[in-house]
Amino acid sequence: MSERREEMGGLAGVRAEGFTFASHALAAAAAALVLVWCIHFRGGLAFESTNKSLIFNVHPVLMLIGFIIIGSEAIMSYRALPFSKEVKKLIHLILHAIALVLGAVGIYAAFKYHNESGIANLYSLHSWIGLGTICLYGIQWIFGFVTFFYPGASLAFKRVALPWHVLFGLFVYILAVGAAELGFLEKLTFLENSGLAKYSSEAFLVNFTALVVIFLGACVVISTIAPYHVEDPHDYTAVSDD
Amino acid sequence: MSERREEMGGLAGVRAEGFTFASHALAAAAAALVLVWCIHFRGGLAFESTNKSLIFNVHPVLMLIGFIIIGSEAIMSYRALPFSKEVKKLIHLILHAIALVLGAVGIYAAFKYHNESGIANLYSLHSWIGLGTICLYGIQWIFGFVTFFYPGASLAFKRVALPWHVLFGLFVYILAVGAAELGFLEKLTFLENSGLAKYSSEAFLVNFTALVVIFLGACVVISTIAPYHVEDPHDYTAVSDD
Repeated sequence: MSERREEMGGLAGVRAEGFTFASHALAAAAAALVLVWCIHFRGGLAFESTNKSLIFNVHPVLMLIGFIIIGSEAIMSYRALPFSKEVKKLIHLILHAIALVLGAVGIYAAFKYHNESGIANLYSLHSWIGLGTICLYGIQWIFGFVTFFYPGASLAFKRVALPWHVLFGLFVYILAVGAAELGFLEKLTFLENSGLAKYSSEAFLVNFTALVVIFLGACVVISTIAPYHVEDPHDYTAVSDD
Repeated sequence: MSERREEMGGLAGVRAEGFTFASHALAAAAAALVLVWCIHFRGGLAFESTNKSLIFNVHPVLMLIGFIIIGSEAIMSYRALPFSKEVKKLIHLILHAIALVLGAVGIYAAFKYHNESGIANLYSLHSWIGLGTICLYGIQWIFGFVTFFYPGASLAFKRVALPWHVLFGLFVYILAVGAAELGFLEKLTFLENSGLAKYSSEAFLVNFTALVVIFLGACVVISTIAPYHVEDPHDYTAVSDD
């Protein structure tokens, strides 16, 4: 059975590299689209302003570019970079830490906008799932740091923990993509209730950005589970005491 | 390497059975919650009515109970049932066909509500992702039928196709769960814009239903990828000419 799986390379010889490159391209497209939306259509970004909408605009930019895109690169870096395992581990955890901090600042911007505009907090599914996601992301980061980096668990425990680290990490990542989708829908619905035309350029731009983010998420997940080197299809699951 | 994976049973000896049972329980809870919402809070279901909201109510009920829950059972049935492979294959494809038909009727109800109420169609992210999902679901069903059931592909092709069938099937299933989340958020936002209190019982009921659906989705995915029998962790990936 296991020989048969190896023989077909898990996913029929498909290699992760192509999906990793596609992820970089989709990430660049998503970053450009969210900047066009928030700067060109929504008037720009500001942390302090009498125009409170500019404070809100910090939220989608930081959540998409800071949290999801840097988080995507953090996930892929561990398999894709040509460095030693120890260096890749360091890059993986630093990129995830940056994503976590930028995500937290982005969430702060949403609360700041609400509070300064008299809008209620934490009633929507987007806010529930979004906050849940960043909490789980932080727990995953701390658990990964302690288990795999410092002080590091026993080899036996690391072997047990690694597939769960990958599975739970992908679960949290998919939740993050889902929370972003909810955010695009929620904000666009608010704007349409305030008069934005349903089939306007801006509405299409936001929906297309949301679609690009779904494709990004799918490519990142596939580039994590597909074999990387054909001759060693499950290399990244190897655990050692180094 | 592959011995090491077998040794730890993929996910450290965790078996799919527990997640399959949890999925049944979460599916029952989600079904009860959406019925309470649409019947108790929203006045009931009807295909023909002067109260157009009753036509809308058919949509969440059929999409959740018909499409997602029956689809979940269809996914799990192939691994969980104690029958021969040929019988399980038949149950798997029949349940997915029922889910597809009920999903199509549910989407028809949404269009009927829109058209009879003068509401625009197909402008929202929910509608885009939802329609995309059911199209991909249909393509996946036809491809699976032709490859694995009738006329059936060569053993070599089935071996190549099976991991893609599982991967693409899970992708479409996760999209379906995501589309449901978008639907809960969108409908609740419309209701709140029409006067429903943001922290009302109904708002909490809808958001909790959405959370139950996420947990259901996670359990179904894990019950699909976790090993089923400890002594044969990847049994379901076996392909034969029977």
